[in-house]
Amino acid sequence: MDQHSLKKILEAVATGKTGVEEASRAIHRTACEDIQYAHIDHHRSLRKGFPEVIYGQGKTAGQIIGIMEKMMDQESVVLATRTDAAKAQAVRNKIPEATYDADAQMVIWRKHPPILQGKGTILILSAGTSDIPVAREAFLTAEAMGNKVEAVYDVGVAGIHRLFRHKEMIDTASVLVVVAGMEGALPSVVAGMVGRPVIAVPTSVGYGVSLGGLTALFGMLNSCSSNVAVVNIDNGFGAGYMAAMINRV
Amino acid sequence: MDQHSLKKILEAVATGKTGVEEASRAIHRTACEDIQYAHIDHHRSLRKGFPEVIYGQGKTAGQIIGIMEKMMDQESVVLATRTDAAKAQAVRNKIPEATYDADAQMVIWRKHPPILQGKGTILILSAGTSDIPVAREAFLTAEAMGNKVEAVYDVGVAGIHRLFRHKEMIDTASVLVVVAGMEGALPSVVAGMVGRPVIAVPTSVGYGVSLGGLTALFGMLNSCSSNVAVVNIDNGFGAGYMAAMINRV
Amino acid sequence: MDQHSLKKILEAVATGKTGVEEASRAIHRTACEDIQYAHIDHHRSLRKGFPEVIYGQGKTAGQIIGIMEKMMDQESVVLATRTDAAKAQAVRNKIPEATYDADAQMVIWRKHPPILQGKGTILILSAGTSDIPVAREAFLTAEAMGNKVEAVYDVGVAGIHRLFRHKEMIDTASVLVVVAGMEGALPSVVAGMVGRPVIAVPTSVGYGVSLGGLTALFGMLNSCSSNVAVVNIDNGFGAGYMAAMINRV
Amino acid sequence: MDQHSLKKILEAVATGKTGVEEASRAIHRTACEDIQYAHIDHHRSLRKGFPEVIYGQGKTAGQIIGIMEKMMDQESVVLATRTDAAKAQAVRNKIPEATYDADAQMVIWRKHPPILQGKGTILILSAGTSDIPVAREAFLTAEAMGNKVEAVYDVGVAGIHRLFRHKEMIDTASVLVVVAGMEGALPSVVAGMVGRPVIAVPTSVGYGVSLGGLTALFGMLNSCSSNVAVVNIDNGFGAGYMAAMINRV
Amino acid sequence: MDQHSLKKILEAVATGKTGVEEASRAIHRTACEDIQYAHIDHHRSLRKGFPEVIYGQGKTAGQIIGIMEKMMDQESVVLATRTDAAKAQAVRNKIPEATYDADAQMVIWRKHPPILQGKGTILILSAGTSDIPVAREAFLTAEAMGNKVEAVYDVGVAGIHRLFRHKEMIDTASVLVVVAGMEGALPSVVAGMVGRPVIAVPTSVGYGVSLGGLTALFGMLNSCSSNVAVVNIDNGFGAGYMAAMINRV
Amino acid sequence: MDQHSLKKILEAVATGKTGVEEASRAIHRTACEDIQYAHIDHHRSLRKGFPEVIYGQGKTAGQIIGIMEKMMDQESVVLATRTDAAKAQAVRNKIPEATYDADAQMVIWRKHPPILQGKGTILILSAGTSDIPVAREAFLTAEAMGNKVEAVYDVGVAGIHRLFRHKEMIDTASVLVVVAGMEGALPSVVAGMVGRPVIAVPTSVGYGVSLGGLTALFGMLNSCSSNVAVVNIDNGFGAGYMAAMINRV
Amino acid sequence: MDQHSLKKILEAVATGKTGVEEASRAIHRTACEDIQYAHIDHHRSLRKGFPEVIYGQGKTAGQIIGIMEKMMDQESVVLATRTDAAKAQAVRNKIPEATYDADAQMVIWRKHPPILQGKGTILILSAGTSDIPVAREAFLTAEAMGNKVEAVYDVGVAGIHRLFRHKEMIDTASVLVVVAGMEGALPSVVAGMVGRPVIAVPTSVGYGVSLGGLTALFGMLNSCSSNVAVVNIDNGFGAGYMAAMINRV
Amino acid sequence: MDQHSLKKILEAVATGKTGVEEASRAIHRTACEDIQYAHIDHHRSLRKGFPEVIYGQGKTAGQIIGIMEKMMDQESVVLATRTDAAKAQAVRNKIPEATYDADAQMVIWRKHPPILQGKGTILILSAGTSDIPVAREAFLTAEAMGNKVEAVYDVGVAGIHRLFRHKEMIDTASVLVVVAGMEGALPSVVAGMVGRPVIAVPTSVGYGVSLGGLTALFGMLNSCSSNVAVVNIDNGFGAGYMAAMINRV
Repeated sequence: MDQHSLKKILEAVATGKTGVEEASRAIHRTACEDIQYAHIDHHRSLRKGFPEVIYGQGKTAGQIIGIMEKMMDQESVVLATRTDAAKAQAVRNKIPEATYDADAQMVIWRKHPPILQGKGTILILSAGTSDIPVAREAFLTAEAMGNKVEAVYDVGVAGIHRLFRHKEMIDTASVLVVVAGMEGALPSVVAGMVGRPVIAVPTSVGYGVSLGGLTALFGMLNSCSSNVAVVNIDNGFGAGYMAAMINRV
Repeated sequence: MDQHSLKKILEAVATGKTGVEEASRAIHRTACEDIQYAHIDHHRSLRKGFPEVIYGQGKTAGQIIGIMEKMMDQESVVLATRTDAAKAQAVRNKIPEATYDADAQMVIWRKHPPILQGKGTILILSAGTSDIPVAREAFLTAEAMGNKVEAVYDVGVAGIHRLFRHKEMIDTASVLVVVAGMEGALPSVVAGMVGRPVIAVPTSVGYGVSLGGLTALFGMLNSCSSNVAVVNIDNGFGAGYMAAMINRV
Repeated sequence: MDQHSLKKILEAVATGKTGVEEASRAIHRTACEDIQYAHIDHHRSLRKGFPEVIYGQGKTAGQIIGIMEKMMDQESVVLATRTDAAKAQAVRNKIPEATYDADAQMVIWRKHPPILQGKGTILILSAGTSDIPVAREAFLTAEAMGNKVEAVYDVGVAGIHRLFRHKEMIDTASVLVVVAGMEGALPSVVAGMVGRPVIAVPTSVGYGVSLGGLTALFGMLNSCSSNVAVVNIDNGFGAGYMAAMINRV
Repeated sequence: MDQHSLKKILEAVATGKTGVEEASRAIHRTACEDIQYAHIDHHRSLRKGFPEVIYGQGKTAGQIIGIMEKMMDQESVVLATRTDAAKAQAVRNKIPEATYDADAQMVIWRKHPPILQGKGTILILSAGTSDIPVAREAFLTAEAMGNKVEAVYDVGVAGIHRLFRHKEMIDTASVLVVVAGMEGALPSVVAGMVGRPVIAVPTSVGYGVSLGGLTALFGMLNSCSSNVAVVNIDNGFGAGYMAAMINRV
Repeated sequence: MDQHSLKKILEAVATGKTGVEEASRAIHRTACEDIQYAHIDHHRSLRKGFPEVIYGQGKTAGQIIGIMEKMMDQESVVLATRTDAAKAQAVRNKIPEATYDADAQMVIWRKHPPILQGKGTILILSAGTSDIPVAREAFLTAEAMGNKVEAVYDVGVAGIHRLFRHKEMIDTASVLVVVAGMEGALPSVVAGMVGRPVIAVPTSVGYGVSLGGLTALFGMLNSCSSNVAVVNIDNGFGAGYMAAMINRV
Repeated sequence: MDQHSLKKILEAVATGKTGVEEASRAIHRTACEDIQYAHIDHHRSLRKGFPEVIYGQGKTAGQIIGIMEKMMDQESVVLATRTDAAKAQAVRNKIPEATYDADAQMVIWRKHPPILQGKGTILILSAGTSDIPVAREAFLTAEAMGNKVEAVYDVGVAGIHRLFRHKEMIDTASVLVVVAGMEGALPSVVAGMVGRPVIAVPTSVGYGVSLGGLTALFGMLNSCSSNVAVVNIDNGFGAGYMAAMINRV
Repeated sequence: MDQHSLKKILEAVATGKTGVEEASRAIHRTACEDIQYAHIDHHRSLRKGFPEVIYGQGKTAGQIIGIMEKMMDQESVVLATRTDAAKAQAVRNKIPEATYDADAQMVIWRKHPPILQGKGTILILSAGTSDIPVAREAFLTAEAMGNKVEAVYDVGVAGIHRLFRHKEMIDTASVLVVVAGMEGALPSVVAGMVGRPVIAVPTSVGYGVSLGGLTALFGMLNSCSSNVAVVNIDNGFGAGYMAAMINRV
Repeated sequence: MDQHSLKKILEAVATGKTGVEEASRAIHRTACEDIQYAHIDHHRSLRKGFPEVIYGQGKTAGQIIGIMEKMMDQESVVLATRTDAAKAQAVRNKIPEATYDADAQMVIWRKHPPILQGKGTILILSAGTSDIPVAREAFLTAEAMGNKVEAVYDVGVAGIHRLFRHKEMIDTASVLVVVAGMEGALPSVVAGMVGRPVIAVPTSVGYGVSLGGLTALFGMLNSCSSNVAVVNIDNGFGAGYMAAMINRV
C-alpha cells in the first residue's frame, strides 16, 4: 500500500464514505493469505512486477500444490524451483497444464505465453558442460519474466578462443549471465570484454578445493573486472531474475 | 545434595543415628542410576525443574526404551528428541501410551497433561515453510514444560508486511522464539519491534553459502538488535527449553 | 506507532480536527531524527523499554558526541560501548557529567541513578581473570537497565571446586551470565547446576585454536545443558541487555 | 579491435594501401602501453565505456602518479581507489587539479564535470554510520561515471521504521546500492520492497562472528529476495561501477 | 638396524666372515615385505613394541586378508581397525579364529591371550552413550597391547555429580582416556581433578556447530587444564595406543 | 592460429588468392566444434601436444560418447577421467575398443600404442594402500602421454626405511609424483632426497581433521623442501599430465 | 578433599571433637583464595603434583605480581608463562629473585632447585630454528617440574639425515616432545622410529597456508604413526607439562 | 651418502685400510654442522644441486649471519629470503659483498656470477603491479640457480589482449611462472595457450574474500587447464626454485 492509496482511504474517511473501523482494518490488512504452512504474498507481483516464486526444496508436493493453486487464481505465471522429478510428477498429476524442465528442476505454469518486457537480449554463457543445469535455470527464469534470452555452453578459459568465436553475440547482449564452476574465471574474462552488467553464477561443479562452489564464488567476488556482481552458488534462478530486473531498468 | 541435606546427615552422625561408614556412602552416592550404556541423572528434575531429555540420535531404539522405562518410574513426562520414524515405532510398540510427532521427530510420554507453569505466552515464529519442523520441536518442548504456546509460520523478510499483520500477537508475547534459515534476518527485525527476550534458532534450510545453517547462525549472533540470544543450528528443542526457563523467571 | 495511535489520528480526521494531508504526514513521519550521518531512533525506548545504545567502534568522537547530545534531550540514560580511552576523553571534555569505565570501554551518561526494574538478581560469572573486561561490560549494562547485579570472577573448570564455593549465589540468581574464553566449558557446567536461564558469552581470550573465540562460541552452542543461549564473541553488552530483558519478563 | 576494424585493415591490404608486414603489426599491436611496472589498457574506455581505474593499494605513490599521467593524455576522468592520505598528498603535489575524498580514500581527476549518462537515479543506502566510507566510495564512483546519485545513511533493521520513512525515494530509484555490515539484513528487506535491481555491499563493520564481513556477505548471497546481487566485502567502488552499468542498460 | 648391529656386520666383514657385497646388501635390505599393494613393515614390533595395525578403511577385504596372513607368520597379535561388518565377515571366512567387535569395528587375531605389559590401570571415560563406539575402540586397543583397562560411560558435564561418583577409580588410574563429542568439556574437568596424563578423544557426535567433531577437538586443545593431549576426531584406536605407550614408560 | 599462419592468410589476401570476406571468416573461425552441450577444442593437441581430456563427472554417458566420437576422428588417443563403472560400460558398448581401468576410473581409447615422447622415467610413489587409485590415475595419464612410468606403493613415513629401500629408483627418476593422504608428509621427505621436480598429490584418504584432503594439501604447500609443487586433492590426472609436460621440457 | 579426609572429619564429628557447624564449613570451604580478580587454587599442587601456573597474557603486571605473592607463601615454585619483557621487568622489580627467559617469555620463581621426580629423560626436538622459542618453553616447564631434559634443534625433514645423527638420544628418551611449524611432518617421522609417547607441538611458524599453525596441527593429528598426541599451537608449556606427567607414571 | 660411497668404505674395511670404529663413525657422521640454533645441511648442494637457502623470517640477523658464514666456506652462492631491510643492513655490514633486493626482500651472496645450467628460458608473468615483489623473488631465485629468465608484469585477465601481445615470448619459454592475486585466473588462461609446465603462484594481493590469497590458491588448484601446479601463497622463491629444477630435467 503506497502513499497514494493511503490518501485515497483517508479522503474516503474524511468524506464519510468509509468508517474509521473499516479504514483501520483496510490499512492493517496487508495483502497476504495465510494457509497455515505458508503466508502467500499476493501483493508481490504488484510490488515487484513478478509474483512470489515457490522454493520447492524442503516442501512436500502437497505444500507446493497448495500454494500453486492459491496463486493460480491471481497470477498469470507461477514457478516452482528446485523441485525434483518425483514432486514434479505429483504436481503435474494435479495441475496437468504445468510443464517441467528436468535439467533445471523447475515447474512452470502459465495462463498465456510470456509478454516481452525486457528491452535487449539476455545472454547466458556456461564454462562447461556440467554447468548446463544451472545455466538452464537462469534461462527459463529470465524467459518466463518476459525476455529474449540466448545461451552458449562450454566456452571456458582452458581454450579461450572458443569464447572469442561468439564475440558478436557477447558484444550485443544487454545483460550477461556467466555460469562457471571450478576456478570460476570466465566472468572476469567476459566482463573485461564488454561494457555491460555481468551476473556471475558460481556452480558446485568440481572436486577437492572447489569446496562445493566456494572457490568459484570467491574468485568471482574478487574479479579484477568491475562490472560483475554475484549470486549464490548454483543459484541460476536468482541470476535469471536479476538479469530480468536489469533488462527493464 | 545441598548444604541443608548435608547438615541433616551430619547431625544424624553427631547424634549417633547414622554411622560414619553409612554417612560417608550417602554423601558420595549421588543420585544417578548406572545402566551400563547410560548414567541416568534422576536428580535433574529436582535440580532444574524438568527431567533429563533423551537425545535419540546415535542411540539404538533399545537404548532409548531402556532409558525411558527407568525414567517413567520417577518422572511425569519423558521426551526423546531426534528420534526417526523407525525408532519411534519400536518405542511405541513397547510403550504404546507414548505419542510421536513426525515433523518434530519427537517422542513424548506423560502421566498426565502438562500443568501450566509459565506466566505469559511463548510465541514461535518461522521465516519459511521449510523451517516448520524446527519450529514445531520448539513448540512441543515449551508446551511439554507447561507453557501456553502460539505459532505463526512463513513470515520472512522478503515480504515484511506479512510479519506486521501479526503485530499484536508479537507485542503481547512474553518470550519469542524466531526460527529462520538462509540469511537468518527475521530475529533482528522482530527483536527491533519488541522489548522482550528473543531466542533465535538458525536452521539448515538453504543451499550454497547457507553453509548448513552457519550463515543464519552468524547473522543472528551479529544482530544489530540487542535482545537476541542464539542456540545451535536446528536446535528447536533448546530454544523451546530456554524459552520455558525464561517464562518462569 | 501502534493500532491505538492510528485510530486516534483517524478519529481526528473523521471529526475534521486533522486534515488529510496533515494526518498522512503524521502517519508517515516515524519517530526518528536524521542528523545526516545517523538516523536516531527516538521511539526505541518507547518500543523496547531502553533507548538506542551507541556502538562506538568505527564512529568518530564527534559523531558519538553528536548522537549523545541529541539523545540526552529525550532520554534519562545514554550508553556508548566500545569507546576507547581517547574518544572517551573527547566525549567527557564535551559532556563532563558522563562517566567512563576503562575495563568495559563504556561511556555512561544518566540524569539520575537507575530505578530498579528487574525482579531477581543477575549473576555474572567469569572463567578467568582475562575475561573480566567482557564480564564488566555485561555488569554495567544490566545495572544501567535497572537490575541488581552480582559478579564472581576466575572460577573456571580447571579447579571446579572454586565454582562450587559460590553454589548458594548461583542457586538464588534469577538469570546468569557466564563469560568464558578458551574451551568455553563453564556455561555447560553452571547450566547443569541450575534451573534458570544462562546467557553464555564467549571471549576471544586464548591463542592457537581458540580461533579468536570461535571455539568457545561453538562449544557453548553445543552445550549438553539445554538452558543456555549464546551471544556474539566478547559481546558483554548484549548479554547484559538480554539478561535485563529476561529479568523483567 | 572489433570485426569492423579488422575488415578495414584487410581492405587496406587488399587495395595495397597497407603492406602485409605493417598490417600484421597493427593487428597484433593491441592497444596497451607498457611502462614496465604496468600495462596500461588504453582501449578500456572504448571497450567498456569507462577507463581503467587505478587500485591504489600495494602501489607506490610514484607508480600511481606514473599511471595517472599516462592516462590523463587520453582520458577525461581518472580514478585511483584505496589511496591513503599520504599517497594522495604525494599525488596532489604532482597533479594539483586532482581532488581527494578522505572518507572514500579516492583520488579523482577530471578534465570537465561528468556528463550525465545514466537514465534514472541511483540510490545508496547504508545500514549504519560506520558503513558510510564504503557507501561514499560507491557514491563517488557512480557519480564520476555520469549518474544522478542520492544517499541515505543509518537506516538498518534494528529500527525498521527509519527505512520506511524514505519509501518514496526507494520506490523511484532505478538501481539501489545497499551497504551493510554485521548481519547484513538490510538488502533483503529493501529488495523485498521494490522491483528494481539491488546491488548489496557487505562491509567489514562488526566484531566476533562478523568474520571481517563474511557473515554479511553470506547473508546477502542467501537473501530470500531474488533481485539482489552482491560484490566483494567493502567494495563500494565495484557496487557504484555495477550500478552505473545497469543504469545505462 | 641399530649402531650395534652395524658394528657386528662390519666386524664380520673385517674378519672375512662376510663378503663386501653380502654386507652391503644386508645393510640396505631393510626389513619390509613388498606385496605390491602394500609394504609390510615387519620390523615395527621390534622398533615400537607392537606390530603395524591395518587401517581397514579404503582397503578391500582381499587386501586386508593378504596383509593379515603375511603378518600372522611373524606376530602374535594383528589388529584391523575401521573394518565394516561386510569386510569383517569376509576376513573371518578366511581366518575363522579372528574375532570382530561390531561397536568398535575392529578385527582382532591373536595367537594367545595378551601378556600384561602396562604397570597401572588405564581408565576410559565417555561423556555420552553415543560416544561408546569410539571409547570401545580405545578399550580394545589398549587391552590388546597388554594393559588392564576399565571403562565408565555417560558421565558428561550436564550432570557433573555422575562423574564425581567414580572419583576413586579416577584417582587411581595411571592414564586416562576421555571421550566426548558436542562441546567436549569433559577432559578439562577430569584433568583438573588428577595429576595423571589425560588423552582426550573428540567424537563426531553432535549436530550443527559440532562441525563433525571440530568443536570438541578445538575445545580440548584449548583446555584450561594442562595435563591433556589430544588425538584426531573419533580416533579411539590412537588414544588406546598412546595410553598403552604411556602406561609402560 | 599463430603469427605465421596469419601472415600466410594476409599474403593470400595481398595476392588476391583469398577474398577479404573469406579471410576475415578464416581468422575468426577458431578451431572448435559446437555440438550444443560442448565446444570441442580440436586445436588443443596442436597447441599443447595432447588433446582435450573429457572430465566424466557431471556428464551423462551419452555426452561422453558424443564427445569421444567427435574426437576419435581427429586424435590418436582420447581419455575420459572420473567415469564410473556404469558410464564406462555404456561407453564400451558403443566404442568396444576403448579400455577401462576401474581403480583409476578412466576410459582410454587409442588408435595405436603410445609413442615414447618423454626423456627420463616418471616415478609414482604412494604413501598408503588406500592412495593407489589416485596414483594409478597419474600412472595411466603419464603413460598415455608417451612416458616410461614406474610406481611404488605404500612407503609412507610411519616406517621410513621402506622408502629408503627404493633409493636408487628415486635417485634416477627424472620427475616424481608423490601421492599421500592424512598428514601428507611423504612429498617433503622425498623432495629432500632428490634434485628433481616433485609433483605432490594430496588425497582425501583419512578421517576427522584430514578434512577431505585439505590437511594433506596444506601440508604439501608448506613443504620445507623447495622442489615441490602441488595439484588439487585426488587429482592424479593433473599430476600425471604435469609430469609428462615436465619430462619433455 | 578426598574420601580419606572426609572420613577423618566425620570421625571427629562422631567423637565430638568437631562440631557439626564447623565440620560443615570445613567440608564446603574448598581450598581457594579469592583476591577479587582471581580465585587462587591452592589445592592444585596437592591434587595434581604441581601448583597452578599463571597465564600472563591478558593479565596486567600488577595482577601477575599479586597472584605470585599469594602463591609464594605456599609453593616452592611459581611459573608465569606468556609474559612479555615489559611485564617481566615489572615483576622482577617487585620479586627480584625471579628469573626471566626471554625466548620462552617465562618468569620462574623458586625456593630451591627442582628435585628430580621423573624417571627417564625427556627429549625436546625442533624442526627449525624459528621453532626454538616454543621448544624452550617446553624445556623450562619440564625442567621446573623435576625432570632431566635434553634438546636438539633444527632437524626437520628437508634433510632427514640430520635427524638420524641423533638416533641414540632419540632411542633412549622416555618421552619425546617434537616441535614443528609449516607442514609439521617431524613428529610422524620421529614417532615412527620409537616405541615411546611423542607429544607433538605445532607452531605458528610459516606463511600462507600454514594458517597460523593450523596446518601443522591438523597434520600432526592425522599422523600415520599412532604414538602421537597433540597440544595447542605454540603451546610449549602444555607439552612440557604433559611430558612431565607421563615421565612420572 | 649413496650406495657407491658405502661400498668404498666397506672395501677399505675389508682391506684393512680403515678400522671398524672409524668406518662406523664415518657412516654415521652425516654431513651436517650443528651450530646450536641450526643444523646446517652441507650435503644439500651435493644431493639437490643447490645449497640450503636461509628462510630469514623468525631468525635474528645474528643467526642469519652465523649460518651464512658457515655456508660461505663451502658454497659458491648463498640466498637468504624474507629478510627485511633492517636485518639485511646488519647482514651487509658484516658481509659487504652480499647484495640486497628490497622488492624481493632477498639477500644474495655469491663467489662468482651464476653459471648457466638450465636449457631454455624461464618466463615470469604477473597479473598486476602489486604482484611484482613476489614475481621478483621468483626471478632472482631462478637466475641465481643458473637460468635465463624473462619477466612481463601487469597482464591480468581484465584486459586479456595485453597478454596476447606477448604471445611469442609465451610460446617459446620452456617453463612459465605465473603470479596472480585476487581471483587468480591468469595461470589457467596462460596454461590453456601453451604445452609447457606452468608453476602458479597465488599472492595475498586483494581484500575481502581474497582471504589473504586462499581464493587465488584454490582457483589455481581448480584450474581447468591441466599443465598447472601450484606453490604456497606469496612463495615466489619456491616457484623460481621449482622452475629451475624443471628447466634442467
